[in-house]
Amino acid sequence: MMSLDDKIERDYQSIPPHGGNLVRAAMEYGLAPQDFLDFSANINPLGPSPSVVEAIKDNLWQICHYPDPDCRSLKSALAEHLGVDGRYLLVGNGVSELIYLLARVFSFRRALIPAPTFSEYAQAVKAAGGEVSYVFMDSSLDFPFPLDDVLRRIPVVDVIFLCNPNNPTGGLISHRELQLLLEAAAAYQVMVIVDEAFMDFVPDPQSYSLLSLAGRHQNLVLLYSLTKILAIPGLRLGVLAARPDIVGALGGSRDPWSVNALAQVAGVAGLKDREYIKATREMVTREREFLFRELSSLPGLRPLPGAANFILVDISGTQYAAGELVRRLGYRGVLVRNCANFPGLSEGYIRVAVKRREDNLRLLEALREVLGGTSHQQK
Amino acid sequence: MMSLDDKIERDYQSIPPHGGNLVRAAMEYGLAPQDFLDFSANINPLGPSPSVVEAIKDNLWQICHYPDPDCRSLKSALAEHLGVDGRYLLVGNGVSELIYLLARVFSFRRALIPAPTFSEYAQAVKAAGGEVSYVFMDSSLDFPFPLDDVLRRIPVVDVIFLCNPNNPTGGLISHRELQLLLEAAAAYQVMVIVDEAFMDFVPDPQSYSLLSLAGRHQNLVLLYSLTKILAIPGLRLGVLAARPDIVGALGGSRDPWSVNALAQVAGVAGLKDREYIKATREMVTREREFLFRELSSLPGLRPLPGAANFILVDISGTQYAAGELVRRLGYRGVLVRNCANFPGLSEGYIRVAVKRREDNLRLLEALREVLGGTSHQQK
Repeated sequence: MMSLDDKIERDYQSIPPHGGNLVRAAMEYGLAPQDFLDFSANINPLGPSPSVVEAIKDNLWQICHYPDPDCRSLKSALAEHLGVDGRYLLVGNGVSELIYLLARVFSFRRALIPAPTFSEYAQAVKAAGGEVSYVFMDSSLDFPFPLDDVLRRIPVVDVIFLCNPNNPTGGLISHRELQLLLEAAAAYQVMVIVDEAFMDFVPDPQSYSLLSLAGRHQNLVLLYSLTKILAIPGLRLGVLAARPDIVGALGGSRDPWSVNALAQVAGVAGLKDREYIKATREMVTREREFLFRELSSLPGLRPLPGAANFILVDISGTQYAAGELVRRLGYRGVLVRNCANFPGLSEGYIRVAVKRREDNLRLLEALREVLGGTSHQQK
Repeated sequence: MMSLDDKIERDYQSIPPHGGNLVRAAMEYGLAPQDFLDFSANINPLGPSPSVVEAIKDNLWQICHYPDPDCRSLKSALAEHLGVDGRYLLVGNGVSELIYLLARVFSFRRALIPAPTFSEYAQAVKAAGGEVSYVFMDSSLDFPFPLDDVLRRIPVVDVIFLCNPNNPTGGLISHRELQLLLEAAAAYQVMVIVDEAFMDFVPDPQSYSLLSLAGRHQNLVLLYSLTKILAIPGLRLGVLAARPDIVGALGGSRDPWSVNALAQVAGVAGLKDREYIKATREMVTREREFLFRELSSLPGLRPLPGAANFILVDISGTQYAAGELVRRLGYRGVLVRNCANFPGLSEGYIRVAVKRREDNLRLLEALREVLGGTSHQQK
């Protein structure tokens, strides 16, 4: 009767696999959750826009009514923001809900995943009884997108999960590469799921996003997150764009009220605040460059170039494995992401979010203390 | 590749199957969502307690952090409130998430459902590819629990869904009946899922709830809702209690962050406010009796006795089918639940929530207007 996957359960119960778990960190390091500077979660460093916070306060009355299961207002706002017909959209309780929903409704038997990448694609496929087959990006070349390997494996899988820009490497997949991939996938009726959760932080998203193609490719499914750009991971808000038959199949297979009312309110308000999204992009671009340069100057650290609001850092030149470095920073109130549990990575990498200048300086200071650099050499 | 269930999709796209959809009602009746008195959703008529609203306001900062996937604080509060060990608890994004999760993780092949009852049990089983077999309560006897029929069918099913008190009839299942059922179910390794979403509104819940047995029966799964008693359907909050192996299998098969941060905050604050829960129970008991008496006095209406915060009303003595009566009340800003789409019911029933006296008077007034009773005969 029970389709229990022991391994998943064990993983889930053990050390926090993901960034951003303040409660666990607070228990481990003996600080209050509010005391941490959290570089382990990749959220808009400006925080929620004032218009989002105001909208939530003004709409607290909605908590005592069921949410709109169709997310009508939010879909209208999304259709305008993304330039995608509302019939192609499905709103979810975070992108994670949509990933698990896809895996279970389409019962993927064999998923192809270029790694390292966001681990929930694999977890969701396994939880739904499917198998995962990884194509590993070459670490010695700093993880380029493995187009040829992916193309070669297309005939033997039924779905490919892509993350663009990729978490945790920050790498982008070009339109040309995606086009080749979509053509090959179409020939074998393989579904291509492209997760653009961090696309809003890329300097020129229109050169990389496929959202304008939503609904026009038979097997293309796009994922888009409002959790990250609007800085509302506590409320959860994700979006899927695909052909209406796919949207209908997914929508009909889940709890109708999964998207809570305040997330819908926050999404509508946040999408209207275009200036905030633009300001975020400019600020992240500037701070990514600053942080990259500063990290490069610290002993033993080698940040990898990327286009997202986080930076993968090769720490193999330090005396620490990732777990130890994470712990030493944690006791200093600074959380970074240990990348050792990403398939395709190792104890030699951490990931840090790009935050505001004052926060980035605190991260750099904590790193200097731990790595034994000259702690007074403030830039 | 696609396990699309056409029927479910069609149902989902058509007329609102559930109560409480203010956005759709606003579109249909040309009023603003705030202008309705909603008797179609069975929520605590006192609304959220002030302590819950305060806690949400004080914790808005949590929206920019990922929610605690383990719901630690909330589980502690629940363990104390329910007298159930935290290891037996799983918190969900509303009870609906948990129902869909159960159906899919345990892949029920054949579910037994005494009807009429909450329709999501059947929807969830079908969405996961299972079959539903109904046992109908006798409408001529006002829907008593069909114990003998259920016992007879146990050998040929793998799960039974019970709702106690039952939505929409308000009927209770006694401990004696549940005991007989659990014994028979154990003999055939049939899972028994008891949804106690409305138990907090029953005058003497301890005489009917099985929560004290949570984790002690191999195949017993209990569902408990905080959405209803705390009046936070917009935030979503449900609870499951069962043996740790069941809890682990379910928890490992879903998106880890499904329970948003504000729902967790609201739950902790709401459970601490015992006085509010007690006051709610007393008020609902008093108003249920008032509403029952007044409805009985209206021409053609026959309310059915029940123990929950709603009343099923036989309207076959009026000149209206449920759809028409619902519409006429809707244009007057009063939403009630058309029960025609409950398997086992018909166009002859509506369901109304028990609300505050002033609201109940407005419902009665609107009913008088529609049914042609003497509209000045205020009590």
